[in-house]
Amino acid sequence: MNRRRIGITLGDPGGIGPEIVVRALAQATELAGLSGTTESTGAEYIIFGDSDVFRFEEDRLGLKPDPAAYVFHESGPEPPSGLLGHSGRCGQPGCRGRPGRRGIPDKDNGAASFRWFADAVASARAKEIGAIVTAPISKKSWELAGLPWRGHTEYLASFYPGAIMTFWSDTLTVALFSHHIPLRQALAGVTKTALLRFFGNLRDGVAAVSPGPHEFLVAGLNPHAGEAGILGREESEEIEPAICEARESGIPVSGPFPPDVVFRSALGRPEKVVVALYHDQGLIPFKLAAFETGVNVTLGMPFLRTSPDHGTAFDIAGKSPADPRSMIAALRLADRS
Amino acid sequence: MNRRRIGITLGDPGGIGPEIVVRALAQATELAGLSGTTESTGAEYIIFGDSDVFRFEEDRLGLKPDPAAYVFHESGPEPPSGLLGHSGRCGQPGCRGRPGRRGIPDKDNGAASFRWFADAVASARAKEIGAIVTAPISKKSWELAGLPWRGHTEYLASFYPGAIMTFWSDTLTVALFSHHIPLRQALAGVTKTALLRFFGNLRDGVAAVSPGPHEFLVAGLNPHAGEAGILGREESEEIEPAICEARESGIPVSGPFPPDVVFRSALGRPEKVVVALYHDQGLIPFKLAAFETGVNVTLGMPFLRTSPDHGTAFDIAGKSPADPRSMIAALRLADRS
Repeated sequence: MNRRRIGITLGDPGGIGPEIVVRALAQATELAGLSGTTESTGAEYIIFGDSDVFRFEEDRLGLKPDPAAYVFHESGPEPPSGLLGHSGRCGQPGCRGRPGRRGIPDKDNGAASFRWFADAVASARAKEIGAIVTAPISKKSWELAGLPWRGHTEYLASFYPGAIMTFWSDTLTVALFSHHIPLRQALAGVTKTALLRFFGNLRDGVAAVSPGPHEFLVAGLNPHAGEAGILGREESEEIEPAICEARESGIPVSGPFPPDVVFRSALGRPEKVVVALYHDQGLIPFKLAAFETGVNVTLGMPFLRTSPDHGTAFDIAGKSPADPRSMIAALRLADRS
Repeated sequence: MNRRRIGITLGDPGGIGPEIVVRALAQATELAGLSGTTESTGAEYIIFGDSDVFRFEEDRLGLKPDPAAYVFHESGPEPPSGLLGHSGRCGQPGCRGRPGRRGIPDKDNGAASFRWFADAVASARAKEIGAIVTAPISKKSWELAGLPWRGHTEYLASFYPGAIMTFWSDTLTVALFSHHIPLRQALAGVTKTALLRFFGNLRDGVAAVSPGPHEFLVAGLNPHAGEAGILGREESEEIEPAICEARESGIPVSGPFPPDVVFRSALGRPEKVVVALYHDQGLIPFKLAAFETGVNVTLGMPFLRTSPDHGTAFDIAGKSPADPRSMIAALRLADRS
């Protein structure tokens, strides 16, 4: 595995993915910081996506990233028949033409963005690349394309069941115990057994990407972390026993803390990783504290996957300029690790 | 009703309540801003609490608020027998002596802090005071005292079922659709009927305390507000129909928006009030965005109730200095309305 070979997927062609990739690569001076020189990034970027989509975006934006900084991945064999339900349409890797429909969820764009991502994962699993940086896909486009995975993380979890979604920034670091499932289902999944497994995977995953001792602060599930049982039983019945057992096995985890206090207490303290028990518990504070510069990092796999922490932004795609800072931070983090 | 007569309850004597009341009243120059003069606050403060607890705190802190600025409320008749389960113990209004135990939930402190608050509510209902500013109580102390209410808001809701918990600051304003109940129960309560009633009460309550047009932004319940039904059905089945019907009746409400985006989008826009569907959805972002200066305001009653947005802080009570800024902001807001 060569960690300096970094895959970049273009994301949903109907969203801002291709734009932020072009903008990020065009900001040579920004990216140059990666390798500590001002001449080159040091990393070799492999773009997984339709070169026509990329060129279309270059022309639209009037930007021209240094061609020496990246190559396009050679498209592999066609996907298994039936999985994507169609082939040869615009927006797919094999298609030379305009991108698919802009600004809305689209079946073809879903199929294309999945294909590019699946190719990148295959390359990473084959150790051809050491990390993948993913531009945003649309979960709805993937659903329209008939795909059974709700997003990047779920697809990765099909290979690596211990994969964990984490969010990193200078101000706050958050790990999600659960992510893209209905809140009702997230609640039902808060069990001692699942938490214990998660704490172990998290300790190992964080150690692999970030040096130095870390401390894991677990947010409660209920208001005031259950307020001694008055406002919910999950803390005393599942969460506290899991934390207790994990600590005995040497994992530096503590809590459960009142959810409306714990994020504030971890601000600006990079050794503290807050464990959120459901998607919005972690992402509401993260997006407030680290908007524009946050990076989504999937841990618990033999390679790293990073991503900007925003979505496809269909509402501005192709209209207003998209902000590439989070994408740039994702490229930096992939290269640093 | 005289809005310039403002009740102040001391809160749980084992927490930082008495300290922040003394500190706030001692900061005459801070409070002077209330009435626009530098000499007096203009408001008359009625303290609901044991004067010995207040004096004990004055001595401990070496602070002496201007005695002309406040009076103590005359204690009313004993509480109904059996409700508090005891009487005549330290920390209660009738008791002259040291406060009850510090730094932990305590039955006597729970009974005392409830009694003071109940007296203040009775005064407000009798129109003797126009607003109540409450220092923090401990829900656990109230439970130990055998009280059936979980907190201030629940007691108020027993008189005023449409009472709504809101949080105000210069950066963010949040209204809670539900508050001190287990998260599981909060989810079950998200119904079209309940939301419709809430939107109407909220519109009326906000209009009564804050001039100018407001806009209500409703956060979704599930990740990405259900992402078109993939991540949960409550949005399409309950929340969207409620918003639709409320808009038709002229209430300026919109959404549901992705929870991890909507709070950010309302930052620094005082005309936007974000509706959070459960306690932590609203308070995690509020406490990040408005720590130390946020104010809890109960709407939907004939009088106003404000409160600092922090708890009893048992861990520092009587040890480290407590920060009175949120209490001062609560006093200001009670006087402004």
